[in-house]
Amino acid sequence: MKIVSREDLKRLKRAGAETEEPLSAVQEIIDLVRKKGDEALRTFTLQFDGADVQKWEVGPEEMEEAMEQADPALVRGLTEAARRIRKFHEHQRQQSWFFTEEDGTVLGQKVVPLEKVGVYVPGGKAAYPSSVLMNVIPAKTAGVDEVIMVTPPLENGKVYETTLVAAKIAGADRIFRVGGAQAVAALAYGTESIPRVDKIVGPGNVYVALAKRAVFGQVDIDSIAGPSEIVVLADESADPVYVAADLLSQAEHDRMASAVCITPSRDLAERVAEEVERQCRRLPRREIAEASIKSFGAVCLVKDMEEAVSTANQLAPEHLELMVRDPWHWLAKIKHAGAVFLGEHSPEPVGDYWAGPNHVLPTSGTARFFSPLSVDQFVKKTSVISYSPEALYRDGDKVMYLAEAEGLTAHAESVRVRLTKKREGEGIGENRETDE
Amino acid sequence: MKIVSREDLKRLKRAGAETEEPLSAVQEIIDLVRKKGDEALRTFTLQFDGADVQKWEVGPEEMEEAMEQADPALVRGLTEAARRIRKFHEHQRQQSWFFTEEDGTVLGQKVVPLEKVGVYVPGGKAAYPSSVLMNVIPAKTAGVDEVIMVTPPLENGKVYETTLVAAKIAGADRIFRVGGAQAVAALAYGTESIPRVDKIVGPGNVYVALAKRAVFGQVDIDSIAGPSEIVVLADESADPVYVAADLLSQAEHDRMASAVCITPSRDLAERVAEEVERQCRRLPRREIAEASIKSFGAVCLVKDMEEAVSTANQLAPEHLELMVRDPWHWLAKIKHAGAVFLGEHSPEPVGDYWAGPNHVLPTSGTARFFSPLSVDQFVKKTSVISYSPEALYRDGDKVMYLAEAEGLTAHAESVRVRLTKKREGEGIGENRETDE
Repeated sequence: MKIVSREDLKRLKRAGAETEEPLSAVQEIIDLVRKKGDEALRTFTLQFDGADVQKWEVGPEEMEEAMEQADPALVRGLTEAARRIRKFHEHQRQQSWFFTEEDGTVLGQKVVPLEKVGVYVPGGKAAYPSSVLMNVIPAKTAGVDEVIMVTPPLENGKVYETTLVAAKIAGADRIFRVGGAQAVAALAYGTESIPRVDKIVGPGNVYVALAKRAVFGQVDIDSIAGPSEIVVLADESADPVYVAADLLSQAEHDRMASAVCITPSRDLAERVAEEVERQCRRLPRREIAEASIKSFGAVCLVKDMEEAVSTANQLAPEHLELMVRDPWHWLAKIKHAGAVFLGEHSPEPVGDYWAGPNHVLPTSGTARFFSPLSVDQFVKKTSVISYSPEALYRDGDKVMYLAEAEGLTAHAESVRVRLTKKREGEGIGENRETDE
Repeated sequence: MKIVSREDLKRLKRAGAETEEPLSAVQEIIDLVRKKGDEALRTFTLQFDGADVQKWEVGPEEMEEAMEQADPALVRGLTEAARRIRKFHEHQRQQSWFFTEEDGTVLGQKVVPLEKVGVYVPGGKAAYPSSVLMNVIPAKTAGVDEVIMVTPPLENGKVYETTLVAAKIAGADRIFRVGGAQAVAALAYGTESIPRVDKIVGPGNVYVALAKRAVFGQVDIDSIAGPSEIVVLADESADPVYVAADLLSQAEHDRMASAVCITPSRDLAERVAEEVERQCRRLPRREIAEASIKSFGAVCLVKDMEEAVSTANQLAPEHLELMVRDPWHWLAKIKHAGAVFLGEHSPEPVGDYWAGPNHVLPTSGTARFFSPLSVDQFVKKTSVISYSPEALYRDGDKVMYLAEAEGLTAHAESVRVRLTKKREGEGIGENRETDE
């Protein structure tokens, strides 16, 4: 792995979200599903997944079968992970609140869970049960009525057993065997079999990502994730074996993944660079990890810890490890990161699978303004205004003044009719204007 | 105004966000600003606003001058409104939180304000100081370091006095005289004069809306608002004069605005329909209000209050007034609305200008999943994971199991190197694997 200066690091490429755009194909799929419903789903599922699906929804027997056939160690592991994830996300629940003013006016904010949420779960070569937990649990913790999962069928029309097991443990309410842009369209507009939802989340290939973007506004969507990223901020106290292993844990994800160590220690920099090479050789996903390290990996040597932190803030990475003497001290200076891992016993994969916080995190520098997936994203808020008569009669003239200053006379009128009725009631005798 | 059934109402058109798309022109503007910075801003500002701007930032003298020349009643009104808006939004502040597990593991969520936010303020025929307050105050209340306002210059290079006064009262940090897609591009990428921001909010014409959509991902944006909407849910206790005035307060906004009264009372329905016609005649913006009422307005007659509520929930309106006997009882059944106004002393314009809650609200049925503009939208969160040695040694094997079940060996390795070192330290003598 190369050792670079801070200036060099700025020139290092960084991958964004996918940009290749089969946009018109995706739009055609969406239009057809919107128009023809299940019939279009059947056509596309045959065409793209090679499966002739008759019954879209996964039934209770298929779920039971999956649970029975699954490795008990997997069921135990996912169940315990789900418990930890649920516990963490429960802390994110927000309450409605109201306050009353002296004149009797009540103002507040009602927090309401979304009614229906769609979770996309990719099919493809492997099943990622952890992703099912991370997307379904925050929605259920928020109080979403119905979490509706979609996932592409295998050629035999079945769905990965592991995906079903994870869905069951996470608490998904209904599961449909459909994937791709057609699944996104079905969730956004509804078909005979698949209910329309309010929001669609979950990772997918470029077709899924484009379809989500295309239906945005019709439903809400989560943000489109780019390749995985890790920054390990390390001082001379860090173990280079750990640093290298953690860098590689992200590099193995994807050729476009980015793994950067930032350190003020030249000695550590050199040892990490060597150790990355050494550990990489024995990885099954060596080829991917090597490509990622070559294009997007580096050890960045900086002057001191202050410069290390400011470099990390500039990158605003998805994952940031603080493998330094006093991680809590430095955490206070971290402004932009999806998740921060403190100390040498917090390797990033503990966050991916186990600790409890969500592993769906902002990538490509968007931690400057985006947040991890959370309960917040499965509720919406409604403002509540109960103005008291006393307050309206006191403030009415001022409201009318501001409305008229903006040229919005009918706004002012809606207050004026009330003030007029009040004065009439008091016998002040201002006659309501007539216009006949 | 027409009286319709619930079924008819479903067929009533409803306008969405603007759809006309001068997309390529907008993309060109963005590209040029990105490439040429201030020089491009100068060209476009001359072309679109007819102003030859030399100094982009509004200086302290210009601000003072605006404050001195402004109508003192306006300054007082905006100051009092700002105080109320600030008070309401302070309730939305969220705190960072952490919890410690028995084994010493600490998990939490850090809430961090965005660093820099851009607020777009339209120029055009009129100034809307209330919009400045509603966009700037939540950002400042969230703790945003720098709120940077942009607004198109008049031909003489000046900016509306009222806009400056509102900016000063709301606490905007810097103001630049630039508008249109070029202003959005400048905020998203930065120029010599204008700093790059993390998020852009505020209303604008179709060029501004498209530019915001185009830079989304580079920065965060707020949602694109459609035309104003009001639903007044009224029973026979409601005053038809009030209902009509409130419907017209939204109808005057825009020919595309929508104003609907839902009631189980035929008597009220008829009186509201007549009263709308009567009041409409004397409005200065009569032509706009009439067009809006004609295309998108109706009184919808329903069976009972339950049906009234379910119809309102289906519409998920931006503004919902409950002009009924027991509004708090019915509030509990409202699932989807941007803001709810309870009782006959809470006309919608009180919310637009005065009460405190934000007047930037989800339109076009998006209250199903979007929320009012709030402090939430000017902070982002970072997950914090400090796993304890005890917890890692206890859970490590399970984490490795899940990682390997997903085929991610390097993820498992990052845990394994730590467990191995521990065992070596304990003299258990499992040798670290070598690969030479």
